[in-house]
Amino acid sequence: MTQARAEPGNLIDGKAIARRLTDRVKIEVEALREKTGQLPGLAVVLVGNDPASEVYVRNKALQTHRAGMRSFMHMLPETTPQDELLGLIARLNGDPQIHGILVQLPLPKQIDPAVVTNAIVPHKDVDGLGEVNAGRLSLGIPGLVPCTPLGCLILLRETLPQMRGLHAVVIGASNLVGKPMAQLLLREGCTVSIAHIDTRDPAGLAREGDILVVATGRSGLVRGDWIRPGATVIDVGITRVPTHDGKTKLVGDVVFEEARQVAAHITPVPGGVGPMTIACLLHNTLQAARLTLDPQGGLA
Amino acid sequence: MTQARAEPGNLIDGKAIARRLTDRVKIEVEALREKTGQLPGLAVVLVGNDPASEVYVRNKALQTHRAGMRSFMHMLPETTPQDELLGLIARLNGDPQIHGILVQLPLPKQIDPAVVTNAIVPHKDVDGLGEVNAGRLSLGIPGLVPCTPLGCLILLRETLPQMRGLHAVVIGASNLVGKPMAQLLLREGCTVSIAHIDTRDPAGLAREGDILVVATGRSGLVRGDWIRPGATVIDVGITRVPTHDGKTKLVGDVVFEEARQVAAHITPVPGGVGPMTIACLLHNTLQAARLTLDPQGGLA
Ligand SMILES: NC(=O)c1ccc[n+]([C@@H]2O[C@H](COP(=O)([O-])OP(=O)(O)OC[C@H]3O[C@@H](n4cnc5c(N)ncnc54)[C@H](OP(=O)(O)O)[C@@H]3O)[C@@H](O)[C@H]2O)c1
Ligand SMILES: NC(=O)c1ccc[n+]([C@@H]2O[C@H](COP(=O)([O-])OP(=O)(O)OC[C@H]3O[C@@H](n4cnc5c(N)ncnc54)[C@H](OP(=O)(O)O)[C@@H]3O)[C@@H](O)[C@H]2O)c1
Repeated sequence: MTQARAEPGNLIDGKAIARRLTDRVKIEVEALREKTGQLPGLAVVLVGNDPASEVYVRNKALQTHRAGMRSFMHMLPETTPQDELLGLIARLNGDPQIHGILVQLPLPKQIDPAVVTNAIVPHKDVDGLGEVNAGRLSLGIPGLVPCTPLGCLILLRETLPQMRGLHAVVIGASNLVGKPMAQLLLREGCTVSIAHIDTRDPAGLAREGDILVVATGRSGLVRGDWIRPGATVIDVGITRVPTHDGKTKLVGDVVFEEARQVAAHITPVPGGVGPMTIACLLHNTLQAARLTLDPQGGLA
Repeated sequence: MTQARAEPGNLIDGKAIARRLTDRVKIEVEALREKTGQLPGLAVVLVGNDPASEVYVRNKALQTHRAGMRSFMHMLPETTPQDELLGLIARLNGDPQIHGILVQLPLPKQIDPAVVTNAIVPHKDVDGLGEVNAGRLSLGIPGLVPCTPLGCLILLRETLPQMRGLHAVVIGASNLVGKPMAQLLLREGCTVSIAHIDTRDPAGLAREGDILVVATGRSGLVRGDWIRPGATVIDVGITRVPTHDGKTKLVGDVVFEEARQVAAHITPVPGGVGPMTIACLLHNTLQAARLTLDPQGGLA
């Protein structure tokens, strides 16, 4: 069913596709500046000292800056009360220089992530995780779409000439990845199945997928015999595992060497979905800025 | 997989289950009045003269009244401008006697139904069709759930001792029925597949369903050989068709006499999902009133 485009070794090159997307964002940021005299601005908020989160946040700020946008970082102590964080978000909501607001998760225990996420005004919710944007995605109304599933969708669009009518199977049903992914695939005209920890025969279901998206965080879960021959496989999982020589490496949820024998197209880990997430954050920030600065530009 | 409870002729008796739900609402309305001195109030808005809509609206008002709640009807002419309707909704949003607002669809051409639906404050959106309630359903946050899929869920809960891990197949992907149904089933722990007009092999997919919900509006679509032996079948479709004697009757999307030979449980049309929709509207109005009058009562 799935039609192959000529790609060396059937790899979906997330790095290259992310670079092209980022380059396009950069050009459009410049065009927006010429047209409106203003630049998109992204505020990234970090609470606490989680080292991985610090790396992510700094990387997001750097990439935003490189794409020609304004980037603002707010780093608050681990003990910040929820009210103080909500106060900051209220100020950012009202700040005309800020078009996108991202609060890095996870948050410390005293803070309810749902309350914080829903405090961001929907048109600045560039992570797309608030209830209004989740509702728009579900209803098929234009809105801001969570970055990782949007990235997966772009990879699929670049790989498959046509998705309408294909059976897409999503393994994993989180609010961050699996659920919005399923809704995006439905919007593309796929028949969609969604599996999770209680699914009885995930391998059998997976084998029905012309498209298979895996987002469970269980490395090695998906073996070669889970894959329909000729399918397109998107591996969202990222797990750091030890190697024989005492170092570590990143792996996905799919046993890559087995799967690539069967799939027509597959994302590697790293270099597949990972680079798309940040490129989509830049894309969403640009879209959010357009909502305010150039409303007739519209949302994807 | 699905376990049968003893029900005569494997029929799911929507009328009886709806009556029990309505009776419970009535008792709880009375308890709320005793506790708070106030009654839930539902405003139903009809624009134009569609005869079917007039029947629905009058029936909703009557049932609300019978359940012991206040019922308000607003009937506006076909030519009502959108702004005037939005003005009415703004007044109802601010009216402390009104806890639920329902705008009967379809609306005349000059009015955008999405704009009107989203103008209702989320805690009075008893149809659950606005973007905030759609988002809450998608994210698994308590909210007001669309009446028809909620009714189907209650029928399933009354029929099946346990849904977790069952494969639920939903045919039809509308914002009104199919999509929220799929999300509710996912929330119950089902593996969920959703099909629509572009699905290549809907019969094959349907046959995988331990639970099969059909909401397409295509009478006679689902034949006996689409049904997994022992499955539970919920037929949402309603179509009026001519009979041999020159009259008309209501039929569902499922060929009932074939399906009931194969299914363990099945809803008839009429008398299945239909009565549940209005019972769930009463339930939602009570829930919405509790949100304001007795907040610690909480949402289902
Ligand atoms: N590349 C990127 O930029 C990026 C971005 C985000 C996430 N990720 C990675 O993607 C993975 C998933 O992230 P997440 O946030 O969605 O994780 P999550 O919130 O932990 O959700 C995992 C989902 O997978 C399901 N699941 C777990 N084990 C399963 C199994 N054995 N079989 C079937 N389903 C199973 C869970 O089911 P239940 O719901 O029933 O528990 C849950 O729905 C992680 O490795 C994460 O690091 C990567
Ligand atoms: N009992 C009640 O209280 C109640 C309440 C509401 C609705 N209903 C009835 O339920 C039915 C559906 O209502 P709705 O509002 O959801 O209708 P709708 O908005 O017309 O949606 C119908 C859905 O079915 C899909 N579909 C149509 N033909 C199909 C086919 N041959 N194979 C597979 N999928 C097909 C459509 O696919 P696409 O999306 O690809 O077009 C669409 O997703 C109607 O008969 C309606 O009267 C009953």
